[in-house]
Amino acid sequence: MSGHLSVIGLGPGAPEQIPPQASVALAEADALYGYGPYLNRVPARPGQTRHASDNREEGVRAAAALRHAAQGGRVAIVSGGDPGVFAMAASVCEEIEAGPDEWRRFDVKIVPGITAMLAVAARAGAPLGHDFCAISLSDNLKPWELILKRLDAAAEAGFVTALYNPVSQARPWQLVTALMRIAERLPATTPVIYGRAVGRSEESIRVTTLAEATSIEADMATLVIVGSAETRVIAREGRETLVYTPRAAKVMA
Amino acid sequence: MSGHLSVIGLGPGAPEQIPPQASVALAEADALYGYGPYLNRVPARPGQTRHASDNREEGVRAAAALRHAAQGGRVAIVSGGDPGVFAMAASVCEEIEAGPDEWRRFDVKIVPGITAMLAVAARAGAPLGHDFCAISLSDNLKPWELILKRLDAAAEAGFVTALYNPVSQARPWQLVTALMRIAERLPATTPVIYGRAVGRSEESIRVTTLAEATSIEADMATLVIVGSAETRVIAREGRETLVYTPRAAKVMA
Repeated sequence: MSGHLSVIGLGPGAPEQIPPQASVALAEADALYGYGPYLNRVPARPGQTRHASDNREEGVRAAAALRHAAQGGRVAIVSGGDPGVFAMAASVCEEIEAGPDEWRRFDVKIVPGITAMLAVAARAGAPLGHDFCAISLSDNLKPWELILKRLDAAAEAGFVTALYNPVSQARPWQLVTALMRIAERLPATTPVIYGRAVGRSEESIRVTTLAEATSIEADMATLVIVGSAETRVIAREGRETLVYTPRAAKVMA
Repeated sequence: MSGHLSVIGLGPGAPEQIPPQASVALAEADALYGYGPYLNRVPARPGQTRHASDNREEGVRAAAALRHAAQGGRVAIVSGGDPGVFAMAASVCEEIEAGPDEWRRFDVKIVPGITAMLAVAARAGAPLGHDFCAISLSDNLKPWELILKRLDAAAEAGFVTALYNPVSQARPWQLVTALMRIAERLPATTPVIYGRAVGRSEESIRVTTLAEATSIEADMATLVIVGSAETRVIAREGRETLVYTPRAAKVMA
């Protein structure tokens, strides 16, 4: 099989956060598949075709790219952030497993990227400085009860928690419900960070507390980091606040 | 204050995985601080000084770099992976909080990088495709009982788990003990990935199961990903195995 499929992460949005490995893989592809706004971030190259699809059509997009690669094409699927974190790499694997044998025979390369929680954390200080977890709040693909169970487990065990897909048009209540759930187990003063569109012109970083967080608007481009009971805030005159979680745990199990 | 401190992640080791933002920040610094092997990865620039220190001297290194920056220098601290994930950014914040007021007044910039779990996951498929957590197995800075509590919580709640700092010379038993603990709660067939030195010439990726994993050697450069009960393996003739965690959770809470 001469076909080749790469799955490439564009990071949160700033071109200077895209590793050279990803830029090279993008330039080498003959066909790009992806959600339209992600494709629009990739510099145009003559002769390279583009195949945009809707944000929620991951499986259909992955299958189309695999069919194209099976015909011998050099195909890339473009993803925001890191392709392995709530993005396209898992969809591609699902389609390979369910698809024809030939889809298992060609070269598949996943090219990592800066996922949103790393970019937001870096802008805020070091909130992920100790043990942490990442939870998608979308209940499209898992029951809401399971999400609540994981939020409880994370808060009780002392993980810092990064919340991906905090809201959607169909489910605007998810983030507030999740924050209220976490607030049952963590102090009202626990630091919470809202990061939106990091590295882009419309970037916004807000540092608040669990008590205040429910009143802050979020959208699909927002990544929320909820601290643990050990997460700290450093006030700095004339500078942005730094939020960090110490490396040493002071609280006993 | 004209001082400037950046904290820069070099990723797992391959130069092509270092985002341009990090390369520019490295080139702009007048002085680099870091663990010697990380400093050795940075291209030399005439006039730029280098200050190597031992791997376990994070606090001392951060304070030295802050003192240097407070004198007006353009200083960078170099870190492997992402500086915010079990690396230097939290140490810098700790020193700023504990240090003199002037350390709060100058510009601090954290530059994100590809952390080991993202690079290992990308080489193996998409094991982090669903909710996941990252736990450091080092008990230098937290009690071992707390580590066990977090391993239990992660396995019970269905998180995929990335294990950082799996062993050390002083504590070679940590990883095996952790894997045996996880095996009390997850099937013996649960996929486990050992990733070492990803992107470097000595790279090694091994896919095994929880039952077999305890017999595999690991060192300080190893990152271990333990799947959830839903993580799957796709065998491919003549190609490396793909490991992934489906986006849809099939198990109810």
